[in-house]
Amino acid sequence: MTLDQIETPAALINQPRMERNIVRMQSRMDMLGVAFRPHVKTTKCVEVAQAQRGAGARGITVSTLKEAEQFFAAGFRDILYAVGIVASKLPRALALRRAGCDLKLIVDNLEAAQAVAEFGRAHGEDFEVWIEIDTDGHRSGVQPDESRLLDIGRMLHGNGEPHGARLGGVMTHAGSSYDLNTPDALAALAEQERAGCVRAVGRLRDAGLPCDVVSVGSTPTALAAQHLEGVTEVRAGVYVFFDLVMRNVGVCTTGDLALGVLTTVIGHQVDKGWAILDAGWMAMSRDRGTAKQTQDYGYGQACTLDGAPLDGYMLTGANQEHGILANVEHPDRDISVHLPVGTRLLILPNHACATGAQFPVYHALLEDGEVVVWERFYGW
Amino acid sequence: MTLDQIETPAALINQPRMERNIVRMQSRMDMLGVAFRPHVKTTKCVEVAQAQRGAGARGITVSTLKEAEQFFAAGFRDILYAVGIVASKLPRALALRRAGCDLKLIVDNLEAAQAVAEFGRAHGEDFEVWIEIDTDGHRSGVQPDESRLLDIGRMLHGNGEPHGARLGGVMTHAGSSYDLNTPDALAALAEQERAGCVRAVGRLRDAGLPCDVVSVGSTPTALAAQHLEGVTEVRAGVYVFFDLVMRNVGVCTTGDLALGVLTTVIGHQVDKGWAILDAGWMAMSRDRGTAKQTQDYGYGQACTLDGAPLDGYMLTGANQEHGILANVEHPDRDISVHLPVGTRLLILPNHACATGAQFPVYHALLEDGEVVVWERFYGW
Repeated sequence: MTLDQIETPAALINQPRMERNIVRMQSRMDMLGVAFRPHVKTTKCVEVAQAQRGAGARGITVSTLKEAEQFFAAGFRDILYAVGIVASKLPRALALRRAGCDLKLIVDNLEAAQAVAEFGRAHGEDFEVWIEIDTDGHRSGVQPDESRLLDIGRMLHGNGEPHGARLGGVMTHAGSSYDLNTPDALAALAEQERAGCVRAVGRLRDAGLPCDVVSVGSTPTALAAQHLEGVTEVRAGVYVFFDLVMRNVGVCTTGDLALGVLTTVIGHQVDKGWAILDAGWMAMSRDRGTAKQTQDYGYGQACTLDGAPLDGYMLTGANQEHGILANVEHPDRDISVHLPVGTRLLILPNHACATGAQFPVYHALLEDGEVVVWERFYGW
Repeated sequence: MTLDQIETPAALINQPRMERNIVRMQSRMDMLGVAFRPHVKTTKCVEVAQAQRGAGARGITVSTLKEAEQFFAAGFRDILYAVGIVASKLPRALALRRAGCDLKLIVDNLEAAQAVAEFGRAHGEDFEVWIEIDTDGHRSGVQPDESRLLDIGRMLHGNGEPHGARLGGVMTHAGSSYDLNTPDALAALAEQERAGCVRAVGRLRDAGLPCDVVSVGSTPTALAAQHLEGVTEVRAGVYVFFDLVMRNVGVCTTGDLALGVLTTVIGHQVDKGWAILDAGWMAMSRDRGTAKQTQDYGYGQACTLDGAPLDGYMLTGANQEHGILANVEHPDRDISVHLPVGTRLLILPNHACATGAQFPVYHALLEDGEVVVWERFYGW
């Protein structure tokens, strides 16, 4: 298949850019002396995860048990399910471990830790559990200095004998890095993320609770960290494609963006300077992550098919299957001449995780111009 | 299956409420003396469309050719594809018509009309085409008084002999109705939508261009229209579930909302008064349609499982698989006591079309408490 044979809208991967992004992150992790565990929630695509593993990644991170099941079926064994486990999800986790999956769970509260241990005991399984640490206050996790950290650690460790659960590590995610946009602020948050997680594991170890893994990460902090002393592995997801939000955070350029939505001009409103596209929010997602950043890209930045941005042209509005394209810098009253009906464009997304999730497949454009179809899945 | 056996997150349909919404809209259309053609883009679910047909709907509206293909395969024959057609999509439209689907296309420009006629001639098919009319300036369509309306009409009509296309009707969608919130404003827009479409068809007929169908609609204008003289059919989609945006527009109450996301509390940040849920934006969608309305519901309104709103508790933040629930009126420092880990909640969505699209299946809760699974599809 070639580019002109793809029906629109379609999620197009620029495979050489993707490979470059993978190599960039893996090289950095190698240099910092830590293992790298990519978060595959961004793509939910086996071919992409295989490329990450091929470059040196060790294990994967998932956001749903369905991802764990699908990637395990595709040959990935070392899997971190990085959303706090609850009792109702333990049967599926058990099935995965019994099938041979080296599945790790996370908890940030005593109730969940107890539920895992009790369920594990009842079923003769020792679940490996990591404790989620809150290093930036943006979401979940136990703060490094909270007393309940040790309570949870003791619940998981027990007396060190098999008792349904075991303490495998600590992990944190400084998701507030998405709100920053200077190298100094990112480096400071990366250090805060590292130091908080290392402090937490120190408290556990000082209390006699062995804890091997120290796992940190987000795409911006992974790329900004100056050193990772005490850390054993890093996680990141969106770096594989990057997106306009990451461009505004300052960790990539528009030329690094490896995912775009291929779309066709289906009409115009000449008086308003609009072209109507067949990519609305069902294709782009409703993500407006750049709305609160320094450069607002609407629902996406328009490019020619080779990925060169059309300066000023962006998706200013989106209905379910209609996108409204306009030049926000210089209103274009000749837009029907410049971009006639049938013109194909590429729209760079605000958030690659959200946009990818709208599509059953990716179309990957290889170096030689060939296009291959890579399945992706969704649901829970 | 019963409610407590559903894994979270899940898209839960309150089936009695849905039936009530379907009857309400159909009765109104019967009273106004027009046919009703529901827009199935909201649900992409055969069981829901069958319920709409069972109540009296005639034909369906779709937003993608995939919907047309899927619903035709499920026994729906009279289908309007309500997004402007372009040349590259005509082979799929042809395949549907050749298989016996009574597929109607729409255009709002001469290039598209010409492309249809040429493709039809080349393949010995007479495509039925409707002209899209712009009655509120919110998106695509030809304005009723534009001269090109007649050019497009003539291109489609030809000399009345088979020539690849034929003019079947005019259609409009007053999507700006979502921005209103008073009965008077809605009734005025409904009249503007009706009058504009009737004016357009009058011009076509006066020019000797036969044009049978006059199709209007959006959920708010359908429910607000005082009369529909000159209109032959109405289209609406989201009414089947309603949502918080429609509640703010004023065409339903929270008690009419038939779609919610079933979710589980997985943790807390007690100092902040947060419960962390397993429904993030992957489940709710990124739609923030209530942000610019009089009542902002964040990413959704929390309810108990029977659909009773928990006043003040809403999703104030959403990451991919994490939702942050807080009481925005009275910060709840005892939230871990009120809503302990494992508690199940229902979250009413801002926009039912966007939230439904995140799920591979609906779980429909029937009157008798039984839960059945209804497939839905996605993609293009």
